[in-house]
Amino acid sequence: MFEWLCHSVEPINEEDLEHAQHWQNQLTKPQGSLGALEAIAVTISALQKTLNPSVNNARIVIYAADHGIAQENVSAFPQTVTAEMVENFSSGGAAISVLSRQHKLPLQVVNLGLVSNLPEMALVEHHVIAPGTQSFLLKTAMTEQQLSKAFNIAKEKVDQASDNGCEILIAGEMGIANTSSATALVCALKSMHPEQLTGSGTGLDNNGIQHKVQVIQAALAQHKKRLNTTLEILQTLGGFEIAALVATYIRCAQRSMVALVDGFICSVAAMIAIDISPNCKDWLIFSHQSAEQGHARILKLIDVKPLLQFDMRLGEGSGAALVYPLIRSACLLHNEMASFSSASVSQKRL
Amino acid sequence: MFEWLCHSVEPINEEDLEHAQHWQNQLTKPQGSLGALEAIAVTISALQKTLNPSVNNARIVIYAADHGIAQENVSAFPQTVTAEMVENFSSGGAAISVLSRQHKLPLQVVNLGLVSNLPEMALVEHHVIAPGTQSFLLKTAMTEQQLSKAFNIAKEKVDQASDNGCEILIAGEMGIANTSSATALVCALKSMHPEQLTGSGTGLDNNGIQHKVQVIQAALAQHKKRLNTTLEILQTLGGFEIAALVATYIRCAQRSMVALVDGFICSVAAMIAIDISPNCKDWLIFSHQSAEQGHARILKLIDVKPLLQFDMRLGEGSGAALVYPLIRSACLLHNEMASFSSASVSQKRL
Repeated sequence: MFEWLCHSVEPINEEDLEHAQHWQNQLTKPQGSLGALEAIAVTISALQKTLNPSVNNARIVIYAADHGIAQENVSAFPQTVTAEMVENFSSGGAAISVLSRQHKLPLQVVNLGLVSNLPEMALVEHHVIAPGTQSFLLKTAMTEQQLSKAFNIAKEKVDQASDNGCEILIAGEMGIANTSSATALVCALKSMHPEQLTGSGTGLDNNGIQHKVQVIQAALAQHKKRLNTTLEILQTLGGFEIAALVATYIRCAQRSMVALVDGFICSVAAMIAIDISPNCKDWLIFSHQSAEQGHARILKLIDVKPLLQFDMRLGEGSGAALVYPLIRSACLLHNEMASFSSASVSQKRL
Repeated sequence: MFEWLCHSVEPINEEDLEHAQHWQNQLTKPQGSLGALEAIAVTISALQKTLNPSVNNARIVIYAADHGIAQENVSAFPQTVTAEMVENFSSGGAAISVLSRQHKLPLQVVNLGLVSNLPEMALVEHHVIAPGTQSFLLKTAMTEQQLSKAFNIAKEKVDQASDNGCEILIAGEMGIANTSSATALVCALKSMHPEQLTGSGTGLDNNGIQHKVQVIQAALAQHKKRLNTTLEILQTLGGFEIAALVATYIRCAQRSMVALVDGFICSVAAMIAIDISPNCKDWLIFSHQSAEQGHARILKLIDVKPLLQFDMRLGEGSGAALVYPLIRSACLLHNEMASFSSASVSQKRL
């Protein structure tokens, strides 16, 4: 059922990095003076095995799903907001809608299962697995079949994107209570206490955060015996959209496509993806460090440095979409700047 | 000669900020979840006195000039590079050229005086004040008339931009050895030792940096008696392009136009502009913290937090141009997102 997750991923290659760096060093600027942009361009150049890296035909895919754990009052917003925000994505009023228009990035929304049935609407595909997950406080969030379904839907979306020439994918998520799920996942994977990671999500106060910690702690105790493998943990504590993100990152790497990782939820999914398929890390660019309490710690666990620190904490892929033009700048600079010799600019003398 | 510098600048207004924040808080996202983008949108909204802030008709103006102090071997690159890079701007091969094309921002290059005469070329206007400044090691960099000329050229460019509907201006600079001038300016203004601020510029090694420190230190000692006012300091140690940047920031604020500040040189000019016209600080957005050693300290002296830390150190306005789409995102999100009521999204309950 999960065989494809183990398909091989091409890691970044030292020789390709050297070639890319060699070209970057000939551009008309002091070496290194484009800072982080140089590293991005050199990385993408090496991954794509070309001296002309590009991020053409980028697209945004948002996975939406409801979480049974929302019954436990772990979110500041009511669960109806998941469906309401899917409608907002569809009608173009959400933050990600605005960014998608600004950068002319096609937006696809995938409904993986909400507590309410959604009518047909623009931009939204319905691939309903179940009306949300079960509450993981007492039950297993999803069945093995449901986990596999979430994986396969995401695999298909990545394959579609790749077949259409997409060179960088932005995946986002929407699901009230999904920071609880994501936090529980990291605690189980890294043997951490929820106190270390639990944040306010959409805006809990301190009492709310304490309650959220207790719920997650109780759930971890309840399931202790069956949290043995990464897939078991994901099935027990995850959400459909988190599973879809995990599969997205693995499949992007398998298809040699760069993925731009958004905030807290997406980074947890990226961590799980790397757990399952270590080489896929090379294909991930971490866009920003969010204001959500545990995010800095998770980025540290993955050992990556995100590009921005804008204190965002919205999800929807918004941080990744915001960063997209910077990635494009990095590639364009690498491709379009003159070299010292082509522009007859004198080189460093001291 | 310098009267116009003291024309009034409208400071940002508390009531306008509240109005803007009130609207931002109604958008379909947890309050504060767009982080730094919210602050940018609210600031521009308040400055422009509209609930629909915008950064339309943005343009880039680069001031290029040579520095007499380059004779003292304070730069890793030969002085001919100033002219060579102006040609590179003109033919579209420089970093700023690429960013200008990516974001469809018109690029103007203003030649304020190089050691060599430049022929006519695309995008470049010649407003030659002198063939570079005098070396400030022993002489005064420029005359009072020359300083006034640099100011007035920049004032005219800002007025042209404003008359053409420009709502945000990106100013950049090119001038071999201008980090020496900028460092000397800050030392004189803030009574600091050059050791605290001197960096590698375009790529000096440690010996080169030590030599640069000594040159700046000797110059400060030489001119000690006439470094009394901000304008005296600028005239004695500055460069034509730095003076033009100072005037740019002041004039932008006078014309109620936001300016996007680039790296080390531009921040020094911004500091001087604020010294002369304190309210102009409200109209400046600091785009990034560069890798140049003294920049972090200068930003701290001005008491501002830049948006990016990308370890860039190129100048040309490149960091500001890179950040431009993020500023545009902030405005578009403020203007185009649905409100909770318009999209019928439920509000926070806990």
